[in-house]
Amino acid sequence: MRELNGRPVAEAIGEEIKEKLPGVEMMLGRKPKLAVIRCGEKPEDLSYERNAIRRIREFGMEAESIVFPEDVNDNIFQRAFGKINEDKRTDGILLMRPLPPQLNEGFIISCMDSEKDVDGISPVNAAGLYLGTDGFAPCTAQAVVELLKYYKISLAGKNVGIIGRSNVVGKPLSMLLLKEDATVTICHSRTAELQKVSRRADILISAIGRPRMINSDYIKRSCVVIDVGINTDRDGKLCGDVDFEDCRLKASAITPVPGGVGAVTTAVLAKHLLLAANRDLL
Amino acid sequence: MRELNGRPVAEAIGEEIKEKLPGVEMMLGRKPKLAVIRCGEKPEDLSYERNAIRRIREFGMEAESIVFPEDVNDNIFQRAFGKINEDKRTDGILLMRPLPPQLNEGFIISCMDSEKDVDGISPVNAAGLYLGTDGFAPCTAQAVVELLKYYKISLAGKNVGIIGRSNVVGKPLSMLLLKEDATVTICHSRTAELQKVSRRADILISAIGRPRMINSDYIKRSCVVIDVGINTDRDGKLCGDVDFEDCRLKASAITPVPGGVGAVTTAVLAKHLLLAANRDLL
Repeated sequence: MRELNGRPVAEAIGEEIKEKLPGVEMMLGRKPKLAVIRCGEKPEDLSYERNAIRRIREFGMEAESIVFPEDVNDNIFQRAFGKINEDKRTDGILLMRPLPPQLNEGFIISCMDSEKDVDGISPVNAAGLYLGTDGFAPCTAQAVVELLKYYKISLAGKNVGIIGRSNVVGKPLSMLLLKEDATVTICHSRTAELQKVSRRADILISAIGRPRMINSDYIKRSCVVIDVGINTDRDGKLCGDVDFEDCRLKASAITPVPGGVGAVTTAVLAKHLLLAANRDLL
Repeated sequence: MRELNGRPVAEAIGEEIKEKLPGVEMMLGRKPKLAVIRCGEKPEDLSYERNAIRRIREFGMEAESIVFPEDVNDNIFQRAFGKINEDKRTDGILLMRPLPPQLNEGFIISCMDSEKDVDGISPVNAAGLYLGTDGFAPCTAQAVVELLKYYKISLAGKNVGIIGRSNVVGKPLSMLLLKEDATVTICHSRTAELQKVSRRADILISAIGRPRMINSDYIKRSCVVIDVGINTDRDGKLCGDVDFEDCRLKASAITPVPGGVGAVTTAVLAKHLLLAANRDLL
């Protein structure tokens, strides 16, 4: 069994960024800059933000965090968001979601400048991905594709099973994988006989958010298993959707958690920031 | 084998429209109106336009056809399109595609008022369908769902195979069927061992445009077969993607061509027109 580590994938993306960055900096007269917008202090937001900012800086670009109280008023938030959205020195925006319930998330997202929308959440980028035109895909979904490509796991004609149909992972992944000529099956909580369906996949991607649910009963021999889940188990330990130990003798390759897809996601975010700062690179 | 005729489905949609139409007419002070925009005289466009206009009028609404020469200039077309798009007495627009190559189809579609976009081609409606918010789905894709519901063919948890990944049928259908809790597999020209994959489907939907390609080797016993193809065979006879005669003893139900999904599509168009004329009904 091959362990598909995210680190070398992230490093390769970093090399690509470092090569192109001087030209972009010259053109802009400054470093590309990401604004991370967060409401409240949810631990998972803080952790992702910390990783994202560290990665962006490590790759030689700028990132700043703009924090609102959890109970921020909708008007105040919208005005502040509008200013960041229009700021000429901000190239990319990462909005930590879900926003608190008093904010009109749908409206705010629809206002986001699609060229700054480095995590592909605006309707314009969603439509671009779905219709196959262009635009940014959500970083996690893109990270899965980057990882598969880095490890030269071919997708064309392969049966790829995706467990999860969210707007953040399942649906965008299905669109990205269709574009790579994979035959895509989207499973979810209502799928009947999930094990029977998931065992048909040459490549199985799990994005369900249940600690170690996917054991060896869910995979066929020599399957490639991609674990998008980031969960905390009963002992408070970070783990994925996949029972790594139980699958390791049956799968041909598995991504670990932590250190798998998650490690690539922030590198993709950095790459999107570079592209947002210079659309000519797209 | 049950033949899933489109006519009674269309009639049921017609009844629903006729029931709601008087209230909408009262509110508007006129009948809802569809503008069909066509460039050139392609036979398939003419045939679809004729059917669409007949259906709209049969259901008591108005439809008018606006025709441009095949070689219409981009500026002239855009100006004329803009006028129709803004016309307060036009509730729905059906744009016959593909547009001739000198026209900027992507730009024109992105300008379309999404509330008049009764065939769900604008990016706003595409994003709405993909993100599961709201908006019009393309009529053909919606017609498949209406037909399945009319015949009480349950979708939740079923394995649905879609052959074809177009923006007009395959992709929107996958989104509509996910919403109905089906487990969706999207196949296409690059799918390896298509027969093996398609034989797993409880419900198989073909939208590939190859005359009678889907024979009994492609379906499992008791499968429900939905034929979205409208093709002309070597003898110039109208036929679907499915070899009806070859599949009839193995399938539990099949839609005929003509008289299947196609018959429902224009009824869905009429329903979308009514909804476009009165968003409160949505």
